[in-house]
Amino acid sequence: MSTARLETFADGVFAIAATLLILDVRPEGSPLGDALLHAWPAYAAYAVSFLTIGIMWANHNVMFSQIGRVDRAFLMLNIALLMAVAFVPLPTRLVAEHLRHEGAQSAALLYGTTMVITAAGFAAAWFYGAARLLRPDADRRVVSGISRSYLPGVPIYVVATLSAFLSPWLAVGIYAALALFFALESSLFGRG
Amino acid sequence: MSTARLETFADGVFAIAATLLILDVRPEGSPLGDALLHAWPAYAAYAVSFLTIGIMWANHNVMFSQIGRVDRAFLMLNIALLMAVAFVPLPTRLVAEHLRHEGAQSAALLYGTTMVITAAGFAAAWFYGAARLLRPDADRRVVSGISRSYLPGVPIYVVATLSAFLSPWLAVGIYAALALFFALESSLFGRG
Amino acid sequence: MSTARLETFADGVFAIAATLLILDVRPEGSPLGDALLHAWPAYAAYAVSFLTIGIMWANHNVMFSQIGRVDRAFLMLNIALLMAVAFVPLPTRLVAEHLRHEGAQSAALLYGTTMVITAAGFAAAWFYGAARLLRPDADRRVVSGISRSYLPGVPIYVVATLSAFLSPWLAVGIYAALALFFALESSLFGRG
Amino acid sequence: MSTARLETFADGVFAIAATLLILDVRPEGSPLGDALLHAWPAYAAYAVSFLTIGIMWANHNVMFSQIGRVDRAFLMLNIALLMAVAFVPLPTRLVAEHLRHEGAQSAALLYGTTMVITAAGFAAAWFYGAARLLRPDADRRVVSGISRSYLPGVPIYVVATLSAFLSPWLAVGIYAALALFFALESSLFGRG
Repeated sequence: MSTARLETFADGVFAIAATLLILDVRPEGSPLGDALLHAWPAYAAYAVSFLTIGIMWANHNVMFSQIGRVDRAFLMLNIALLMAVAFVPLPTRLVAEHLRHEGAQSAALLYGTTMVITAAGFAAAWFYGAARLLRPDADRRVVSGISRSYLPGVPIYVVATLSAFLSPWLAVGIYAALALFFALESSLFGRG
Repeated sequence: MSTARLETFADGVFAIAATLLILDVRPEGSPLGDALLHAWPAYAAYAVSFLTIGIMWANHNVMFSQIGRVDRAFLMLNIALLMAVAFVPLPTRLVAEHLRHEGAQSAALLYGTTMVITAAGFAAAWFYGAARLLRPDADRRVVSGISRSYLPGVPIYVVATLSAFLSPWLAVGIYAALALFFALESSLFGRG
Repeated sequence: MSTARLETFADGVFAIAATLLILDVRPEGSPLGDALLHAWPAYAAYAVSFLTIGIMWANHNVMFSQIGRVDRAFLMLNIALLMAVAFVPLPTRLVAEHLRHEGAQSAALLYGTTMVITAAGFAAAWFYGAARLLRPDADRRVVSGISRSYLPGVPIYVVATLSAFLSPWLAVGIYAALALFFALESSLFGRG
Repeated sequence: MSTARLETFADGVFAIAATLLILDVRPEGSPLGDALLHAWPAYAAYAVSFLTIGIMWANHNVMFSQIGRVDRAFLMLNIALLMAVAFVPLPTRLVAEHLRHEGAQSAALLYGTTMVITAAGFAAAWFYGAARLLRPDADRRVVSGISRSYLPGVPIYVVATLSAFLSPWLAVGIYAALALFFALESSLFGRG
């Protein structure tokens, strides 16, 4: 099976998951001006999650630049990965709603756990694909660059998630910092 | 008419139906930590339905690997099939909300009926397409493998649905087991 | 400008508008079994609108099989057309909710008006495109077949809409019959 | 990296953001006929935002007709741009709900600010891409036409936004007039 339809399907899931995020930004209260200002955690959560999903999509792109074909196990690993990506709107909404109220720690833990699972899904799909499904002309330097880049994902997000036990604000700050870092770190895979 | 735009449209419907599922996972109650734990049937329903839609999408893929062109009847069979796929978020939400409350049996019956109709839609589209629209270079072994794989779909889901009269939990357990089985059964169509 | 990205964008809008319809099927009341039976107008409205959007998408397909390039006016006519298509979920929900209650006539009128505008949008896009943007190898027989098929769209839906003044049920029955007719009428444009 | 997957992802976000707009058009009250008439600002906001997103999408198209490849900074600029586009449904809903009530000014300011940020995002992506990533066969006349067309975007929307301090109705009228103007101004980039 070729990679084209899997890429189309994945592009759809990434785009929809990112665009659905706005449905959960619902400033409430009166007057509206105050409600809009008060809702800043919802905007911040929207921005961090949109950026995070965008970076995941870009990484998926880079991964598929080296993958030449798809077998059924790789397909199922990708569906599992997309299941984690499509889950992101839920913890995003919970963090936005609960960060300043009861439940901040639970929301931050769920957000972080979703990121850990997504990072594990990316690593599983990549290391399976890199072992069996590389294009004949795959660039070895890029392949090993991607492999190196996937190693720290899970431990970094585990530490970020655990920091929610110290303070939910700390954890959420780390999630935001990681999204910004990955967005700015332009040589992530050893090339532009 | 070529198959390309039908595949794009179908990919869109599969991706959207799967990604919309998260909108109906809405843990409620206080404190949030308890609400999140209490909502496990919603996560399980999300996972089972996302996986099921993902498998359907993969099967649609395999089907179209052998189909060379589209006529109007095949188009309408596909639209009917996609109508059933796009319906999945409703019974998913109802199972998640009602499994531990009043209405578990009705929700399980609606879920199963949706699966029966979807399986029938797949079989109808496939057997119509296989009779008239195969690619000139279609692989006979794959074609007969797909044909064999579609035969048990309807009876299996009819039995699973009827088991809801014994116990909604049994039916839902079978739906989940079928999704896992189809995901793991990597030689489903006689090849990787 | 080539037609490819316009087709991708249009496929997205058609697929999303159709798949969003399920979000407004929300059987309510207790016990769930009765609520599910009582909600039959919502399922019927879902099916009719999904089928109608599917047929519109198929027609858009046929239209673009003869169009070779896109100019800015054709682009804007298509955006206006898609604006009407993406509006369909609203009257669908209103018909489902109000058909047996207060407001049935208003809902049926809005549904029909949406169809009239959509049919007019299709005709405007087609006749503009057919006059200026045909492919060099466009099939004259198909072109005139499409032209003939677009002429009755607006008057048919105007009559159907006006019938809501006699009875909302009549109007809704005509909308459903038209969707079924267009789906079954396999030689709509003079070929398969 | 080629531009194809970025275009697919962007097409998805544009199409979804536009099609989601209808979810927030929810006429309420009784009788339904009056509620439908009373909800005209929601239809107008739907039309203006759908048209605006459609024009943005068309501009994105024109931009990519001259861009030959994608680097990581351009990717991130596009993700930031899409983040602004996907935000449009929120101010659209707020304008529709608040224009005749408390909060009209806040809603109009948020709508305009979103447009300013989107226009700035388009300009940033374009001027970065035009400086480094043009196709070898890019059309210099089109390139400088696009560059000229992006210069007035930010100041025009800043002025429109500031006019909300005079009157929210004035600001919203300018947003609508700008959408219509851009849609009708068929020679926007110096060609059809």
